[in-house]
Amino acid sequence: MPGTFLTFEGGEGAGKTTVIEAIAAWLKASGYEVVTTREPGGIQIAEKIRSVILDPSHTSMEERTEALLYAAARRQHLVEKVTPALEAGRIVLCDRFIDSSLAYQGYARGIGIEEIWNLNAFAIGDRMPELTFLLDIDPHIGLQRIYQNNEREINRLDMEKLDFHEKVREGYRKLATRFPERIVVVDASQDVEGVLQTIQHVIKTRMNLKSS
Amino acid sequence: MPGTFLTFEGGEGAGKTTVIEAIAAWLKASGYEVVTTREPGGIQIAEKIRSVILDPSHTSMEERTEALLYAAARRQHLVEKVTPALEAGRIVLCDRFIDSSLAYQGYARGIGIEEIWNLNAFAIGDRMPELTFLLDIDPHIGLQRIYQNNEREINRLDMEKLDFHEKVREGYRKLATRFPERIVVVDASQDVEGVLQTIQHVIKTRMNLKSS
Ligand SMILES: Nc1ncnc2c1ncn2[C@@H]1O[C@H](COP(=O)(O)OP(=O)(O)O)[C@@H](O)[C@H]1O
Ligand SMILES: Nc1ncnc2c1ncn2[C@@H]1O[C@H](COP(=O)(O)OP(=O)(O)O)[C@@H](O)[C@H]1O
Ligand SMILES: [Mg+2]
Ligand SMILES: [Mg+2]
Repeated sequence: MPGTFLTFEGGEGAGKTTVIEAIAAWLKASGYEVVTTREPGGIQIAEKIRSVILDPSHTSMEERTEALLYAAARRQHLVEKVTPALEAGRIVLCDRFIDSSLAYQGYARGIGIEEIWNLNAFAIGDRMPELTFLLDIDPHIGLQRIYQNNEREINRLDMEKLDFHEKVREGYRKLATRFPERIVVVDASQDVEGVLQTIQHVIKTRMNLKSS
Repeated sequence: MPGTFLTFEGGEGAGKTTVIEAIAAWLKASGYEVVTTREPGGIQIAEKIRSVILDPSHTSMEERTEALLYAAARRQHLVEKVTPALEAGRIVLCDRFIDSSLAYQGYARGIGIEEIWNLNAFAIGDRMPELTFLLDIDPHIGLQRIYQNNEREINRLDMEKLDFHEKVREGYRKLATRFPERIVVVDASQDVEGVLQTIQHVIKTRMNLKSS
């Protein structure tokens, strides 16, 4: 039985991690075998690539080099972890995937959605998610959630970054318009219960899963 | 004054290193500023990427991951070393470039020349070499040159690899047919003097350089 590949997208603080854990628990309670993951996902080669991307001494890292490295890590994570799980019939819930590259690097950083699409098509082939949940939220609220939990105020520097996060949101929304069959836009400003109900409803009606 | 970007391609033992050194000396003697390089070319980020590719523990490295990493190292080497040298008006002689990926990974490994072309187009943009010298040689002779210098015979294992090197040569020749304006096929079975004379003749007649 082929598995089911679901991805969760959205800006920082949108609720991806929270939602994935809850949806995984809900699916497991219904008897499904579920794998939750995010790149690089503990895959040794992908972790090494990630460490090249994140090395603070690499200040001269050019944006296309970075995009290529993300795509390389994505490829290896896909081949070693996602694809085997899908082939074993599991439901894979992945925290960020191709749409993150399209929204962040393609749109917000300005490399171009088309270019990043082609690059990632090389990396993932036709292994697209069956469904993608876009947790759409005003980045001000998303960042506020994160800062609230760290008990500090948003400062001037964070506010400057807000522009960038606005662009990311805009990029995501463009993608949702472009791939209406695949990307489900979820109002992530709802409380967690509301967000989960929305997602569970879509999974029950759109996926070939027994309802729980 | 814009610089001149020349690349040298061909299988192992074709004579690339030998030829680049001699051509660099010849051009310098004529007063040109010359940079000789090869990827990763001492560029820190590119070296790190290379070490991920070559790490012997990475036995699960998938071929597209590898292609993406090569493209990433190429991008960074280009941005940090080749482009600045060209913008400073230098002649850059580069040992292997995009055609190596096309011949080895695209053709011989079977990913597809078109796919590797698109990937590398993302990495290098329109920074193509003005001229590429393809040192064309029967891989049996090329490998023999290398083994002769190590004073040992070609063994059964090397012979098995010969198939692969034959495919690489075939790939390179296809590229030369596809890019006849850019790629100059040089008979690399000649002695070094003959190879150099051929290349110098082409540089003098095709490039906008003072003859020496
Ligand atoms: N719908 C929600 N309403 C309010 N707070 C939320 C909601 N979803 C998540 N949070 C909280 O917001 C913070 C960021 O959530 P998280 O799931 O880590 O987001 P992400 O993974 O998208 O960055 C966490 O403290 C989480 O508890
Ligand atoms: N035209 C030639 N004829 C004979 N031997 C050659 C020729 N060109 C190079 N060699 C020798 O062949 C070996 C491989 O040459 P090298 O320039 O390192 O090739 P490559 O860099 O293409 O692998 C070296 O020992 C070199 O001296
Ligand atoms: Mg998270
Ligand atoms: Mg060499």
